[in-house]
Amino acid sequence: MAIFSKDIKTLDDLFVHQLRDIYYAEQQIVKALPKMIDKATNPQLKEGLRNHLEETKGHVERVEEVFRMHGAEPKAVDCPAIDGILKEGNEVTGDVAGESVLDAAIIAAAQAVEHYEMARYGTLIAWAKQLGREDEADELQATLEEEKAADEKLTEVAESRVNEAASIV
Amino acid sequence: MAIFSKDIKTLDDLFVHQLRDIYYAEQQIVKALPKMIDKATNPQLKEGLRNHLEETKGHVERVEEVFRMHGAEPKAVDCPAIDGILKEGNEVTGDVAGESVLDAAIIAAAQAVEHYEMARYGTLIAWAKQLGREDEADELQATLEEEKAADEKLTEVAESRVNEAASIV
Repeated sequence: MAIFSKDIKTLDDLFVHQLRDIYYAEQQIVKALPKMIDKATNPQLKEGLRNHLEETKGHVERVEEVFRMHGAEPKAVDCPAIDGILKEGNEVTGDVAGESVLDAAIIAAAQAVEHYEMARYGTLIAWAKQLGREDEADELQATLEEEKAADEKLTEVAESRVNEAASIV
Repeated sequence: MAIFSKDIKTLDDLFVHQLRDIYYAEQQIVKALPKMIDKATNPQLKEGLRNHLEETKGHVERVEEVFRMHGAEPKAVDCPAIDGILKEGNEVTGDVAGESVLDAAIIAAAQAVEHYEMARYGTLIAWAKQLGREDEADELQATLEEEKAADEKLTEVAESRVNEAASIV
């Protein structure tokens, strides 16, 4: 992030900046998920988060592929948004006593992460198309579909099991 | 946020905590939107953000109403997630030269905010229903619908006008 100059002059610059932002975010999510998996107790939730950790490692590689396609250096920039979302998840889950209530809090934290990613990939896809890069938009769309599916899976686990268990504590 | 004790013991505690989180977030968004409106140049974008500022003031009141219905004190708790999302929006838009590219960056920042809110209201609605509070879920649903509509409107403005203008800089 430049402090003294305005570095982003074109939509292409903005696209590359946003790609660096999500590159950082995906890397932070890869670091954060194992802790959430450890804390979770519902087996379906644990399993879903484990699968999503593997998917997320694939998303990091896919972002690197889009950097290559775009002829841009794969570089991460600090992303205060994902830092804040993960920090909040950590704080809230650290403040919960009781396994099933904790599972509900973990799902909420994970869905905040998914929604952040959906917003970012949605934007990146629109900009890639505007820049005439349907090929890059297709790559990014593949990740967006996985984020949406992960979010729906979390809703399903919450509604079919976790929330009910949490409410009878 | 308690540091030495685990204050959240039931789903009800978690619901109230999350309500306090979104209460803080909505208040911060009311403070942040006027700056985004000032920076925006596309008239449809300016107008859309202005309308959403009025809606957001209504969301603050609706959260206060849910506190009342729930018999809980309307109190805000720090929400590092919205702080991070708004900080990132500020940093990126501060780094952009050129009006139409700036409009594209503002839309991206606003959509990250909308998605955060959609995640939080989605979770709150599910928890309210689990707690047998369909009445509170209905209030929260009314806000969720407005957040979704605001997000769609931003996509429409981006795709119909702003992104194309930004790409010919």
